[in-house]
Amino acid sequence: MAKTRQHPSFPEPPRRLGVWLFGAYGGLATTVVVGARAIARRLAPARGMVTETVTLAGVPLAPIDGLVFGGHEVRTSDWAASAFDIWQHNNTLPWPMLQQLAPELRRLSKNVRRGLLVNAGRTIDDLVEHDRGERAPLRTQVDRAIADIRAFLRRNRLRDVVCVNLTSTEPALAPHAAHRSLAAFEQAIDRDNRKAVRPSALYAYVAASVGAPFVHFTPSDSALLPAIQQKFAQTGAPFMGADGKTGETLVKSALAPMFHHRDLRVLSWQGYNILGDRDGQVLAHDENKRTKVASKDALLPSILGYPLHTHVGIDCVPSLHDLKTAWDFIHFEGFLGHKMAMQFIWQGCDAILAAPLVLDMVRLANLAHRRGENGPMPQLACFFKTPFGVAEHDLHRQWQMLTDWLAGIRRDLHR
Amino acid sequence: MAKTRQHPSFPEPPRRLGVWLFGAYGGLATTVVVGARAIARRLAPARGMVTETVTLAGVPLAPIDGLVFGGHEVRTSDWAASAFDIWQHNNTLPWPMLQQLAPELRRLSKNVRRGLLVNAGRTIDDLVEHDRGERAPLRTQVDRAIADIRAFLRRNRLRDVVCVNLTSTEPALAPHAAHRSLAAFEQAIDRDNRKAVRPSALYAYVAASVGAPFVHFTPSDSALLPAIQQKFAQTGAPFMGADGKTGETLVKSALAPMFHHRDLRVLSWQGYNILGDRDGQVLAHDENKRTKVASKDALLPSILGYPLHTHVGIDCVPSLHDLKTAWDFIHFEGFLGHKMAMQFIWQGCDAILAAPLVLDMVRLANLAHRRGENGPMPQLACFFKTPFGVAEHDLHRQWQMLTDWLAGIRRDLHR
Amino acid sequence: MAKTRQHPSFPEPPRRLGVWLFGAYGGLATTVVVGARAIARRLAPARGMVTETVTLAGVPLAPIDGLVFGGHEVRTSDWAASAFDIWQHNNTLPWPMLQQLAPELRRLSKNVRRGLLVNAGRTIDDLVEHDRGERAPLRTQVDRAIADIRAFLRRNRLRDVVCVNLTSTEPALAPHAAHRSLAAFEQAIDRDNRKAVRPSALYAYVAASVGAPFVHFTPSDSALLPAIQQKFAQTGAPFMGADGKTGETLVKSALAPMFHHRDLRVLSWQGYNILGDRDGQVLAHDENKRTKVASKDALLPSILGYPLHTHVGIDCVPSLHDLKTAWDFIHFEGFLGHKMAMQFIWQGCDAILAAPLVLDMVRLANLAHRRGENGPMPQLACFFKTPFGVAEHDLHRQWQMLTDWLAGIRRDLHR
Amino acid sequence: MAKTRQHPSFPEPPRRLGVWLFGAYGGLATTVVVGARAIARRLAPARGMVTETVTLAGVPLAPIDGLVFGGHEVRTSDWAASAFDIWQHNNTLPWPMLQQLAPELRRLSKNVRRGLLVNAGRTIDDLVEHDRGERAPLRTQVDRAIADIRAFLRRNRLRDVVCVNLTSTEPALAPHAAHRSLAAFEQAIDRDNRKAVRPSALYAYVAASVGAPFVHFTPSDSALLPAIQQKFAQTGAPFMGADGKTGETLVKSALAPMFHHRDLRVLSWQGYNILGDRDGQVLAHDENKRTKVASKDALLPSILGYPLHTHVGIDCVPSLHDLKTAWDFIHFEGFLGHKMAMQFIWQGCDAILAAPLVLDMVRLANLAHRRGENGPMPQLACFFKTPFGVAEHDLHRQWQMLTDWLAGIRRDLHR
Repeated sequence: MAKTRQHPSFPEPPRRLGVWLFGAYGGLATTVVVGARAIARRLAPARGMVTETVTLAGVPLAPIDGLVFGGHEVRTSDWAASAFDIWQHNNTLPWPMLQQLAPELRRLSKNVRRGLLVNAGRTIDDLVEHDRGERAPLRTQVDRAIADIRAFLRRNRLRDVVCVNLTSTEPALAPHAAHRSLAAFEQAIDRDNRKAVRPSALYAYVAASVGAPFVHFTPSDSALLPAIQQKFAQTGAPFMGADGKTGETLVKSALAPMFHHRDLRVLSWQGYNILGDRDGQVLAHDENKRTKVASKDALLPSILGYPLHTHVGIDCVPSLHDLKTAWDFIHFEGFLGHKMAMQFIWQGCDAILAAPLVLDMVRLANLAHRRGENGPMPQLACFFKTPFGVAEHDLHRQWQMLTDWLAGIRRDLHR
Repeated sequence: MAKTRQHPSFPEPPRRLGVWLFGAYGGLATTVVVGARAIARRLAPARGMVTETVTLAGVPLAPIDGLVFGGHEVRTSDWAASAFDIWQHNNTLPWPMLQQLAPELRRLSKNVRRGLLVNAGRTIDDLVEHDRGERAPLRTQVDRAIADIRAFLRRNRLRDVVCVNLTSTEPALAPHAAHRSLAAFEQAIDRDNRKAVRPSALYAYVAASVGAPFVHFTPSDSALLPAIQQKFAQTGAPFMGADGKTGETLVKSALAPMFHHRDLRVLSWQGYNILGDRDGQVLAHDENKRTKVASKDALLPSILGYPLHTHVGIDCVPSLHDLKTAWDFIHFEGFLGHKMAMQFIWQGCDAILAAPLVLDMVRLANLAHRRGENGPMPQLACFFKTPFGVAEHDLHRQWQMLTDWLAGIRRDLHR
Repeated sequence: MAKTRQHPSFPEPPRRLGVWLFGAYGGLATTVVVGARAIARRLAPARGMVTETVTLAGVPLAPIDGLVFGGHEVRTSDWAASAFDIWQHNNTLPWPMLQQLAPELRRLSKNVRRGLLVNAGRTIDDLVEHDRGERAPLRTQVDRAIADIRAFLRRNRLRDVVCVNLTSTEPALAPHAAHRSLAAFEQAIDRDNRKAVRPSALYAYVAASVGAPFVHFTPSDSALLPAIQQKFAQTGAPFMGADGKTGETLVKSALAPMFHHRDLRVLSWQGYNILGDRDGQVLAHDENKRTKVASKDALLPSILGYPLHTHVGIDCVPSLHDLKTAWDFIHFEGFLGHKMAMQFIWQGCDAILAAPLVLDMVRLANLAHRRGENGPMPQLACFFKTPFGVAEHDLHRQWQMLTDWLAGIRRDLHR
Repeated sequence: MAKTRQHPSFPEPPRRLGVWLFGAYGGLATTVVVGARAIARRLAPARGMVTETVTLAGVPLAPIDGLVFGGHEVRTSDWAASAFDIWQHNNTLPWPMLQQLAPELRRLSKNVRRGLLVNAGRTIDDLVEHDRGERAPLRTQVDRAIADIRAFLRRNRLRDVVCVNLTSTEPALAPHAAHRSLAAFEQAIDRDNRKAVRPSALYAYVAASVGAPFVHFTPSDSALLPAIQQKFAQTGAPFMGADGKTGETLVKSALAPMFHHRDLRVLSWQGYNILGDRDGQVLAHDENKRTKVASKDALLPSILGYPLHTHVGIDCVPSLHDLKTAWDFIHFEGFLGHKMAMQFIWQGCDAILAAPLVLDMVRLANLAHRRGENGPMPQLACFFKTPFGVAEHDLHRQWQMLTDWLAGIRRDLHR
């Protein structure tokens, strides 16, 4: 992939587009793959996807039935087994649909390769199976991962690929000199300095190395280090993150502007999230939870414009599996200082909410790439809890950023 | 008041501004008066008022401590008694504040005159005291009401006044030929045709007759008839309505765009409102409730762009008084047709939520008037459940309409 | 079946027990049948059944795997089709379980006979298919229904049967002289007086005629008329009703005593129920809803001991199907008259909640019958919203009535 | 006070009864005093008090207007100031009532003495004012506290007094040999061993020393140590604790039996409590919170009979002050293993809920004492989260224990 300002083929979308999922057998990644194939085979509606609405009408996107999936994963499984597991626990993927897709899902799973598990933190370490490959030098591991993606493209005769990070939330990575420049980072890899990296850092570097657009869907703070941004600049691929905005935080970003417009002073915004599932298990651990909470908690002062009492709790309730439930209590002061309250309860299946966003961003990132964009993609801010390089958290203004960008593309097309 | 395109004094705001409240001793009107005086005397913060925020910085508005209140009312009371009544039932107006304001409130109440009670519907008829003035010919009553306002202005040496309709929700008014043209409407008044009018129609006509900007804060459908719009055009005063957007509907207009942006298909939006108070008593009656529900229920299909199952219940729970509680259950479908749910509970004091909007709109309507605007004021759409002549219900876009208008004023000022 | 004081076989439970369901293909009846067979074949746990807990240990009950199902129904379907329909709409019956049970369910459906559809009210009439049998004289229809049950017993070599009324909620039946004595009632049947009956009245009469214990699980007010009670007395079979207590009302009967014990004065208890499904459709009609609301609303003044503001709303939200959601707002006054609030939200699948109660009561009614009891069964009060002949609504005292009865049985057994 | 089996004066209640409050100026204690006086002077209804209901009819209790209050406190304040503080933050004590009671409250405050502040833990230490008296030897402090109560009785010509512990929740006290026997405990006091005690231990010892019945209304675990129980046995005074059951836990104990009766298997019971106030501040600290959570969390496995996932969160939300809000999410499994959910939201003012229980227990403890009871008072179990020596947590069975005890008293009276 070249660094040219505009992809020669723009606006023509690729007939087939590779989608490489880091964390391929997790609940979200599995839902992405099953969902895309179900939609492609007309077993389910393409509901919940922005890119299938009139908002995108006339914009040249890769077709859903042309998406080809592969990925890295540290657990032994396959997409059919993982899908039946989701059925059993959450009932979100209907049994008859899985029966129809199972052979195809097993076949597709051949595109999945052993992932990177370096300095992932104790919680994740305890949940996965380890293998001896982890002991290989970092450089060897990274080069193998790059080769995995290249082989996937070759084998499937794909020209374009988008990488998506869907791995578990990692503990914060301690600052390190190697994060500041690409040269230092690559030296750290060459010197096998494992403390300087986490899996997300390596995966982002791998994506940048193959020149693939990169969607960082988790809150892990190691993926978009300055050093790695330099690598993306070098290979000319755009990127965006962090942490998909799917539930409680989405609602916050839609509601907080209302309080702001009306000068209803928010005194306290107290939120509690309960969920089971691997996500819930990982986030039950304090060091992983801190990464997530930081991502969920920043937007209120930003939208409201004043400091306030906020709290974001995340607790693991195993019986819920992926059915995330959030209760938010908003205490606010109105006319004459009178206190009032609003509460909301959000009951959503996280993977079901997130999967269409992944598919949307894969298509939009490929579009941006074909159009020659690189660096961060602020037009995708509305999809993220912590949009990289974007100070705007008001959902409605973020939405405006997306539609403005699309208006620009439409102008390009009709020039 | 003249019909000139721009008030000679623009941009200079009046030092003192008359505020004429139809329904002067209701809970909302009383809260408006008590609140304005409390703010003027620094007994309470000016919280909840858009016009006191940075959004209006530099825009020349009438000062709060210069507002002079009067009004029409069909019940015998005064603002002090009504305020202590609110304290007793709702505790929204603090006792010590009322003790300090009581003498002034009693004095101000001398500006209140006997209101119009013509064809108000059985529910309202049953709740108020009647007097023989109701039997006078319509024209006599209307002329007296006009004279009341003119005398108020004279007595208080005011040049400007804004009229606000805060009367109880009326049953829908059956269509009548007299509604279509000013001539026919005035003829109906002259002929004492009481079936053609309701109190809100008469009050709006009175406001138009004195050339006062008019804010129609209730859902009653008789105030902004074509005939009456013609009267406003004749005297050059702007108007806006209908039905202040203060609670459940406000939240709806902030949240529905979120579902729309994410293609989360709303299957059902079921809302229940419970409140006590005179408002609750009036709305417990089916014919009055229908007027209100129509106003609350229209915005969802408009924002979402498709028909859906909606329900707006309003029930009287006397023990709640003005503490309105709403429960909304939103059933929606996401990726792969999976169903999820959001609920919210809104617990707000209606008068506390509405009063600052009244003050905001009084100042903004006076500004528009001084600037020479007439006809509807679409810039105030964000304050109404059914913004007159405005198809946009998305709170965030309505807010944009207000800030765009203010930007225009700022441009005028710096020309 | 004889009228002896005690069944000769007590305490020996029947190895096989007939269960005759009026309204056999409804969601609840289907869940009963599927559930019993799933438990019998160890495809699902016997969760939610009181009769499978330690409370019943040592009490001689008919085994679940010995229950043989039949019934009357006015719609054309079968238990497999109805079960797949439930899967599709509610996901409560898992697909793989249905795949395993489908052949057996189709076979069992041969025990279902065309039901009675006489004066059922417009709502129900509009929802079902009619046939010419409805035009036959009442006596003919009743005799045929009696014969249906006798043939079922013969064909399946059963000695005992319990009848359960699971038909849709009917409008209230206007009082009629024929209701007061058995002779008059039978004369009304002989004279084909259709206005004097409803399907539930006929079904209850049919059950009494075959000497079967009768569980009246719906709120329809025609089933336990004095005339019909006389028929049960004549044939020596016990009966109980009305209206299974499964959700919101169950919670009410558990919570209201708490407010009572603490002298927390309930000012208002406002409840809203939303559900889709045939049940929701039927209850959306005012005349049917009134029957239900009356049943749900009586218990609060009874438990609390004073009159209070209550409201029970039931609205149809088609997208919910059988997932009933209830929001209850309880406004109460404590020390010094201070007002506070409790709210609860109940999200349960009605058929899943009710089905185990049906199985429990089938077994307990058979036990009572074998023991020689007849007339009402007050020991089953805890299962009903309107327990026949029982003034006690406190769930905990009702539970005591059940355990006291069981203690009596245990004493009999060990004599 | 003697150790006789029955107080010579039984059944005659004292015309005037002393009530000694440890933690006298806290929000709860202040509400107790203000409330009792307001009821005595007919400024407020005696709502929320069991002892004022028909349940106690005919049982000889000390009259409310005969209660005389005193207490120990480590903060400098008085009951009028504390009451106005409550008005300002919570609005639970109405201003006009406080205006009427203020002189009397100031006068009554002369009965309050400097309290004990020994090894209270860092959180409490940081919130109060310290004085040099804390440095005096333990024995000196304890003797002074005993003398304080005796002087109060003398000065007010009271024969009977009940002591109530209303101090802030303390961290758990590490086990110590001195806790096991009275001799060892008194030796520890004599040797000034401060590590062996906490304020609650000392206060309970003080109450026992004056032979006063003792109500331990907080969860602090140091009050009812074996050594202190021996002291109560020695002076013949009954006692009970721990931790008044006022809100979320009360609801739990009323609801959990419902799930148990119906075999609705509770998978998870997740509860979150938010409150501001001094209580919220103290409980925001982990070591204090642990004491409280232990008290709130034990009852579910006890009532349900199986282990389950539970969580009790307590977070400080300063803007709420004493308006405690709790959200409980109950995930349960019914028929065929289908999962359903119930949620409740409790919005109550803690002091308003607790104050009548304090008054109830003062009167009931005095009754028990006059009747010659000593040791724990299991009849008061329904008032406590962790009823001392009582395994029963089912609210309804606990209520039965109270009414059974009252029935016994009525039998005694009519002998």
